[in-house]
Amino acid sequence: MPAIDPTGGTCAVARTITALGDRWSLLVLRQAAFGTTRFSEFRQRLGIATDVLTDRLQTLVDHGVLERAAYQEEGSRTRTEYRLTESGRDFQVVLGALGGWGREHLPDAADAGARWHDAAGRPVRVAFVDVDGHVLDDDQVTIERP
Amino acid sequence: MPAIDPTGGTCAVARTITALGDRWSLLVLRQAAFGTTRFSEFRQRLGIATDVLTDRLQTLVDHGVLERAAYQEEGSRTRTEYRLTESGRDFQVVLGALGGWGREHLPDAADAGARWHDAAGRPVRVAFVDVDGHVLDDDQVTIERP
Repeated sequence: MPAIDPTGGTCAVARTITALGDRWSLLVLRQAAFGTTRFSEFRQRLGIATDVLTDRLQTLVDHGVLERAAYQEEGSRTRTEYRLTESGRDFQVVLGALGGWGREHLPDAADAGARWHDAAGRPVRVAFVDVDGHVLDDDQVTIERP
Repeated sequence: MPAIDPTGGTCAVARTITALGDRWSLLVLRQAAFGTTRFSEFRQRLGIATDVLTDRLQTLVDHGVLERAAYQEEGSRTRTEYRLTESGRDFQVVLGALGGWGREHLPDAADAGARWHDAAGRPVRVAFVDVDGHVLDDDQVTIERP
């Protein structure tokens, strides 16, 4: 009964958790999905300490989910902003899954948070789908233990 | 530009991240999805310190994703095991999303981790789906910022 490799090793679930699965990294990714790109806005929106934010942004850049870009407002010096890469945009389905679970299992009467919509403005959810594109109920799905 | 409520507040994504979004909680949930129920097996499989495991199991029980049950092996005293509740089983789609992202964006040549299958043994993935049950590409989905 071997212990898992603490870096995640051969299990992709554990690799993702090890790379990005801490509260602040996930909250920064959520905020980036809302369109935030600037250090000062991440800091204010999340109420996160400057040193922690600096560390998490670096980690997210290291893992290729955010990338740095320069921007300049008139009369100001050039600053750095953080943009989601394609890999970071692909993380949206994880955020959608976290939100769907939270709305169902940690209900909040004032629920007014992030929601995902289709082009027609209708709500979408996150689910298991098979190779033919059919949506499956959770009890139609089994996990293959490594 | 208000800071988010550190407990997650009105955003279901943030609520879930705040409740369960730390590495060990997520790794314990992943291990529970593989069928692990006993303290000693969690400890060995995850290589987690006893006090950290005790804390995370309590947190997961507090959030209603695990529940305690008694078991007894012949000749031994009664012990406690930890079983996924319905809420915990519903978290599987989040684990599936984490795994799908990791397989694509943190590739590992020896990838041999958890995979989810349908009843016919075919691989399944996690995706956004609309209210009619159609699978959507990520670029067909937009986030409504709170």
